[in-house]
Amino acid sequence: MSRTRVLLAVLSAAGEKRVTRDIPDIAVSRLPLYLRTLGHLESKGQHITSSKELAAILGTTASQIRKDLSHFGEFGKQGTGYHIAHLDKQLRRILHADLVRDVVLVGAGYLGNALLHNQGMTRRGYRIVAAFDHHPEKVGTRIGNVIIQSNQRMRDEIQQRGIRLAIIAVPPPSAQHVAHQLVEAGVKAILNYSPIALSVPDDVMVQYIDPVTHLQHMTYYLQDR
Amino acid sequence: MSRTRVLLAVLSAAGEKRVTRDIPDIAVSRLPLYLRTLGHLESKGQHITSSKELAAILGTTASQIRKDLSHFGEFGKQGTGYHIAHLDKQLRRILHADLVRDVVLVGAGYLGNALLHNQGMTRRGYRIVAAFDHHPEKVGTRIGNVIIQSNQRMRDEIQQRGIRLAIIAVPPPSAQHVAHQLVEAGVKAILNYSPIALSVPDDVMVQYIDPVTHLQHMTYYLQDR
Repeated sequence: MSRTRVLLAVLSAAGEKRVTRDIPDIAVSRLPLYLRTLGHLESKGQHITSSKELAAILGTTASQIRKDLSHFGEFGKQGTGYHIAHLDKQLRRILHADLVRDVVLVGAGYLGNALLHNQGMTRRGYRIVAAFDHHPEKVGTRIGNVIIQSNQRMRDEIQQRGIRLAIIAVPPPSAQHVAHQLVEAGVKAILNYSPIALSVPDDVMVQYIDPVTHLQHMTYYLQDR
Repeated sequence: MSRTRVLLAVLSAAGEKRVTRDIPDIAVSRLPLYLRTLGHLESKGQHITSSKELAAILGTTASQIRKDLSHFGEFGKQGTGYHIAHLDKQLRRILHADLVRDVVLVGAGYLGNALLHNQGMTRRGYRIVAAFDHHPEKVGTRIGNVIIQSNQRMRDEIQQRGIRLAIIAVPPPSAQHVAHQLVEAGVKAILNYSPIALSVPDDVMVQYIDPVTHLQHMTYYLQDR
């Protein structure tokens, strides 16, 4: 998501009672990483952590973590650290991720199949409740917990369920058209696995997952050419 | 934490370990996005572009793009824009992504399967040449262009081929152990799809792909609670 888009999203949320005004998007973007790390520590039976420990795990600094959290409130006591369960709950509340969110998926190819089998997503609060594909031979088949539906059903399904989140996992030539359909149906946030930049209205957020950009980024630092 | 490091966290969605150089990592991290956009324009038959056009597609500013590129040289002429093929070639050279890179994959589950069928990765210069899984029933089967091998073959295969890049697509409980094996075999850059922070030596880079962090980030701005 572009910074511009983020700022627009913040501005349009200004009428609500949520405090979004002065909080940098960069701080918001790191809360999910803290949350993920808390979950990991909790799964190992740990109850208390510190900004220092979180920083060591995440490759950042304790002061950065304290500063990020300070935008949202007071979560720990000097010298005693953070109660993991409490901080976890608070971060979920802040991110509006304390309820399970329904998500639609478009594209039931290999990647869509992987996403539909990703139980970690559901466990962490994002449940794919409907999936669509334009290949007739896929429509009606079951993958994981959903029955694949025709793309023509997308609009009704999204509107009836009031869904705001979507994942695009279709080939690049179809991605923009699918994005347009999702937006028309009321989707406000798109996670796009297709490696093309989507054009969407200003009140719709898009984030991208593209392994090649990560590999290229790291390749720059490889010393074996 | 430097400004570079702070911004990087948003793009790569995780704490990073890397050697800091004179060129800000944040600028390096955006080159793959420019490269991807150039490829997209070229595929539509376009030959010339401008920082303004790239900025509009990517949701950033023309001055940001010009500033990023200025770290690496002069690529366009005032008033005439960029020759797409030329800039594409130069960016690949800068990123050391002008040769096809061999990558190993660990984990041949649903996600590994999707990665092995991702032809865009190969087309964009990253070829999965070996894949490993610890399930005996998967070993010896063909997925896409590779025959799945036992994890025990990992070290020899990586060393014989001199591979530096790896993708981890195993369940979280196995990810750290796999990372350790990869590092022992000589891997210097890991793209980790498993949602846990890996502990690796300082000369090994790790980046993370975790859809839930993107969804949580966007959920923060949703107005429908």
